[in-house]
Amino acid sequence: MADPAPISFARGAPSLDIVAVDELRAAANAAFENDPAGTCMYGTAIGYVPLREWIAEKHGVPAEQVIVTNGSMQADAFLFQECVAAGDKVIVEAPTYDRTLLSLKGLGAEIIAIPLEDDGIDVVALEQALVDGARPKLAHIIPNFHNPGGCTLSMPKRQKLLELAAAYGFLIFEDDPYVDIRFAGEPLPRMLELPGGAEHVVYASSFSKTVCPGIRVGYLVGPADRIGRIVKIATNTYISPNMVAESIVNQFCRSGGMDGAIATVKDALRERRDVLCAELRTQIPDAKFVEPEGGYFLWIDLPEGTDGAALFAAAAERGLQFVKGTDFFLDGGGSSLRLAYSGVTPEQISEGVGRLADAYASL
Amino acid sequence: MADPAPISFARGAPSLDIVAVDELRAAANAAFENDPAGTCMYGTAIGYVPLREWIAEKHGVPAEQVIVTNGSMQADAFLFQECVAAGDKVIVEAPTYDRTLLSLKGLGAEIIAIPLEDDGIDVVALEQALVDGARPKLAHIIPNFHNPGGCTLSMPKRQKLLELAAAYGFLIFEDDPYVDIRFAGEPLPRMLELPGGAEHVVYASSFSKTVCPGIRVGYLVGPADRIGRIVKIATNTYISPNMVAESIVNQFCRSGGMDGAIATVKDALRERRDVLCAELRTQIPDAKFVEPEGGYFLWIDLPEGTDGAALFAAAAERGLQFVKGTDFFLDGGGSSLRLAYSGVTPEQISEGVGRLADAYASL
Repeated sequence: MADPAPISFARGAPSLDIVAVDELRAAANAAFENDPAGTCMYGTAIGYVPLREWIAEKHGVPAEQVIVTNGSMQADAFLFQECVAAGDKVIVEAPTYDRTLLSLKGLGAEIIAIPLEDDGIDVVALEQALVDGARPKLAHIIPNFHNPGGCTLSMPKRQKLLELAAAYGFLIFEDDPYVDIRFAGEPLPRMLELPGGAEHVVYASSFSKTVCPGIRVGYLVGPADRIGRIVKIATNTYISPNMVAESIVNQFCRSGGMDGAIATVKDALRERRDVLCAELRTQIPDAKFVEPEGGYFLWIDLPEGTDGAALFAAAAERGLQFVKGTDFFLDGGGSSLRLAYSGVTPEQISEGVGRLADAYASL
Repeated sequence: MADPAPISFARGAPSLDIVAVDELRAAANAAFENDPAGTCMYGTAIGYVPLREWIAEKHGVPAEQVIVTNGSMQADAFLFQECVAAGDKVIVEAPTYDRTLLSLKGLGAEIIAIPLEDDGIDVVALEQALVDGARPKLAHIIPNFHNPGGCTLSMPKRQKLLELAAAYGFLIFEDDPYVDIRFAGEPLPRMLELPGGAEHVVYASSFSKTVCPGIRVGYLVGPADRIGRIVKIATNTYISPNMVAESIVNQFCRSGGMDGAIATVKDALRERRDVLCAELRTQIPDAKFVEPEGGYFLWIDLPEGTDGAALFAAAAERGLQFVKGTDFFLDGGGSSLRLAYSGVTPEQISEGVGRLADAYASL
């Protein structure tokens, strides 16, 4: 028998069919036609000025509070460079985005991992850590459709985090790349916009999920003095980010292409999530998960003692990839896994869950 | 009397009239049409694969020896991160590119500045420093149409540098963004290609000068193990560089658009250099300079004791910008200045040198 065609629940990326390629091509044409100098020439580290203004308007802040970067990971790296030194304490969620853990460890930060609950970080545990003497410089929080957790931070917890940030003098890094691809439920306000947010939050987002990942355009919004220091770091790193890409994004945003693109993405993701949740309930009733209201990821906890590494190997034998839960923790996650439903069709999802169920049964 | 229209000899960037905007727009169209997945999706830190292959072929090396980055400054930053730690000694030319000095100082490197002569770095002074015990990790060398010096490293000095690198065990960072815009004289081989180059050289170049600066695509070529370590640093920094921009560059290179673009740039730069040199000889006979055979920059030494800061101020009063020589040295350069002729028309050059002569006469 031939090996089955591989199916990947591993990579957090859209499938090509939900990327607005034709609209992007039109935006690229418009960029070179409408602003050849701004598109082709050096910019400065603040980013392409009209896009910076579009972002500032979207968030209702002056342009001085915005820096547009080569993707939001680069933005994270600049922020960490600006405010995290070796030995500094940093709060992260457990589980959290694996590359954030890597970056912070690379800087020599002392990481304090606080459990993630179904409605976001465990603020009681966080407060206890603070009461017990922890004095973090920064708390890294993914508020919407968490990667990898799939969950969303509740409104009371958003407010509580801001209170704790004010009381204990730390910065909240609100890392929010998925916010605009909510496909169910009601949007919650950003911590950036809540009382205290202007002082205690640096907000990051990206066009990777709304335009396309290959465009690599992200941004930070924060207090003007801190953004000013980050602009200096960016200048010394690369003089200016990609003007061609930012000019294309600007045209895409301002032409209205964005709205149609986001609607397409949301419809596809909702359908994929629905199929994934239904198949999991039917085929793997042991799997516990929070149904995501947006984003790319669903997090599964299997019964304690389930050997995630063995499951990973058994799934791989059946042509199925996912990311092991342990990748998102300093310790733990052994019986958990992350499934990305963004890059697979409903048919692949049904087939993939079948393979996962088969692998699970084989343990 | 109204203030005269400002003229800038300060910024090392082309004027828009010599950028192939229409060809770039066509390349962008082709990128989205011919390879929508490769253009729109995440890549990996090695860069857009077909462009990496094009670069590898150009340099006659396996693709594993190439990483394509968001501009060559970002490439420099990765290389420095990989091989320069605080306290390490690094050789630089004096004068040298100001941002290289900043980056190296930022990393805490101990900088050893070796004078630049009309045919490149003073290899006798460098050898003496090595004989006297200096043990650098790295030597940063700009071989062609030096920024800011305008000069080109001679063939014997290229060979001597490779001998010294082998004898004293340091890496040569051959920083070569201008090589393809030689408009006079005969090309010299890259140190990368000379005996010993494969072991002792990491080579950097860029498409900023041949495609356009806003595209921010650069690259490194070096030993596969070192490039592999740099790929890991790049992965942790931004996952992947800009795929849209790299796919556009790839189309531009492979469609033949590049050849026409370079011819246009060379013709314009040659004319601008000719006008600049002729005007300087006529209007400021005191100015000593090496006539550049390519690139963007001409370096002027005025008689010792000339107050470059006062000249800068007097020129600014007359609506003329340049960069003071002191910006390119740790110490010295007080009676020198850098003139960029890349972004100004022949008419502006004549007028600008007139203002400079007037400012100089006013001191």
